[in-house]
Amino acid sequence: MISIGILGYGNLARGVESAIAQNRDMELKAVYTRRDPASVSLRTAGVPVYAAQQLDTGTEALDVLVLCGGSATDLPEQTPKYAALYNVVDSFDTHAHIPEHFAAVDAAAKEGGKCALISCGWDPGMFSLQRLYAQAVLPEGADYTFWGRGVSQGHSDAIRRIKGVKDARQYTVPVEDALARVRAGEQPELTTREKHTRECFVVTEEGFDTAEEKARIEKEIVTMPNYFADYDTTVTFISMEEMEEKHKGLPHGGRVFRTGKTGFDKEHKHVIEYSLTLDSNPEFTGSVLAAYARAMQRFSAEGRTGAFTVFDIAPAYLSALSPEEMRAHVL
Amino acid sequence: MISIGILGYGNLARGVESAIAQNRDMELKAVYTRRDPASVSLRTAGVPVYAAQQLDTGTEALDVLVLCGGSATDLPEQTPKYAALYNVVDSFDTHAHIPEHFAAVDAAAKEGGKCALISCGWDPGMFSLQRLYAQAVLPEGADYTFWGRGVSQGHSDAIRRIKGVKDARQYTVPVEDALARVRAGEQPELTTREKHTRECFVVTEEGFDTAEEKARIEKEIVTMPNYFADYDTTVTFISMEEMEEKHKGLPHGGRVFRTGKTGFDKEHKHVIEYSLTLDSNPEFTGSVLAAYARAMQRFSAEGRTGAFTVFDIAPAYLSALSPEEMRAHVL
Repeated sequence: MISIGILGYGNLARGVESAIAQNRDMELKAVYTRRDPASVSLRTAGVPVYAAQQLDTGTEALDVLVLCGGSATDLPEQTPKYAALYNVVDSFDTHAHIPEHFAAVDAAAKEGGKCALISCGWDPGMFSLQRLYAQAVLPEGADYTFWGRGVSQGHSDAIRRIKGVKDARQYTVPVEDALARVRAGEQPELTTREKHTRECFVVTEEGFDTAEEKARIEKEIVTMPNYFADYDTTVTFISMEEMEEKHKGLPHGGRVFRTGKTGFDKEHKHVIEYSLTLDSNPEFTGSVLAAYARAMQRFSAEGRTGAFTVFDIAPAYLSALSPEEMRAHVL
Repeated sequence: MISIGILGYGNLARGVESAIAQNRDMELKAVYTRRDPASVSLRTAGVPVYAAQQLDTGTEALDVLVLCGGSATDLPEQTPKYAALYNVVDSFDTHAHIPEHFAAVDAAAKEGGKCALISCGWDPGMFSLQRLYAQAVLPEGADYTFWGRGVSQGHSDAIRRIKGVKDARQYTVPVEDALARVRAGEQPELTTREKHTRECFVVTEEGFDTAEEKARIEKEIVTMPNYFADYDTTVTFISMEEMEEKHKGLPHGGRVFRTGKTGFDKEHKHVIEYSLTLDSNPEFTGSVLAAYARAMQRFSAEGRTGAFTVFDIAPAYLSALSPEEMRAHVL
């Protein structure tokens, strides 16, 4: 059995917890939290909740610690810290900062003799794998990644910070016409605006439901730099009841394409398309983290140390099947 | 530069040749043939064609030899033979015989201190990777593989062996309704007949174009065991001109799905879909073989020996990019 600890107990951590329950070679050993442990009640029976400090001695009996903090402030600090003490997996997803995060985690993991997988999940993660395989197979081609339709938590949070907003949910939606052109192998040059639209559903605070306030809120959303200004954005004001009823879930997904040409005269066109349609973003991400926790346990057992990404892991390390079973039934 | 040799010069070998031309870190060193070398003219300028026997000394200066024979009779003999002498890649695709092929190649490659990748291409190959990753990520789910719309060379050959048939082309076509049900996450149980149909285009020999002969040929096709009897098969008689005009290419493709559920109450559904739409089956397959030839050269340089499958190769081995470039730009 692979003994797994989880740091944190938000949506992603609960996704990892439910994934562990589906993998017969894994057991959840403990959850570690920065909150009062007495305030956290798990779905898995009989598993203890400890204060995060308990990890600091490096003596917890864990094969792998799955880090479920956020990429903005938690993981840049947590992953190097815990990679010195345990084998770890994180879902660091700030693409621009991956090189420095990798370097910090690699140094800590090597120092501690541990294995650390960074930037795991579906993007970065499964989508990255698709980009790499497809680029290797079709060296002359173009890549496209589309996200959605799905809830962007970062964009939803950005709307919630606007004065007078009680709750908000933002859906990222790929533009159908762009998908069709890419799928046809056209290799179009697409601007940000041509690839995705943004749909926002907003509940106002009491006293902010006048036409004037709503117009102000809408304007603040659609002109918000980085988040919305470069997109065609629609804003719909709804009641709290409608929010609860229709927008409670965290669905997401997306598509990775590579279209390329082969032949001495580039006469043959090929389209590779990978798509995910996910009812629950955190549960799917948690399932990916669990599979890669298995890989880190095995890497560590082989005596490897340092930081890794999904590119460094042979697919067989993710599977509970034996090499013979894989060759006979999956190949 | 990775020096590559090709054994054989049929459709697949020409696909490998054109793939090598697209990869700047590879060069085609020589083509080896069982035909008269003087009768073979390559697309790549300045590359020699030798008799296959020239490989037997094991002294050809090749990093990797790509074996482009057929799975029925060539590869079971060729891959073990040459894996004792060179690093090799093959596209052995008789799924039921993979375990024994692996064992024979593994023994030979270990004996010779070489690396051998078997069963590479898109199925087995890229589709196998998708099945393995998706099963690891969604342990509770169902897999589906659909092929087509595309030309099955084995089925086309089977029709050509019927008396009175001059030429034939068989397309494997996935059933749209089955695709839709799988994509909706229904996890249907599908029979062979419910998954694919088979479309046959047949040119008769002179003297066999009577209604009676056509009826006989059609009956022999649709009742042929293993190949057609379990499918809804349509037969269309066409002229040689129409065959040349409309059915000259070798397009193919297909889709791998995994649909699964997560959550403690299995309340969330997920659909993973990977699809290939290929203008040229042999050129795409050749492109996959070329990428894995790079991996075998690197495995060998690291001192590994034995047989491998796509499951054993970390994705990074396929890419010409450095680890830093991959992490910065692909992850």
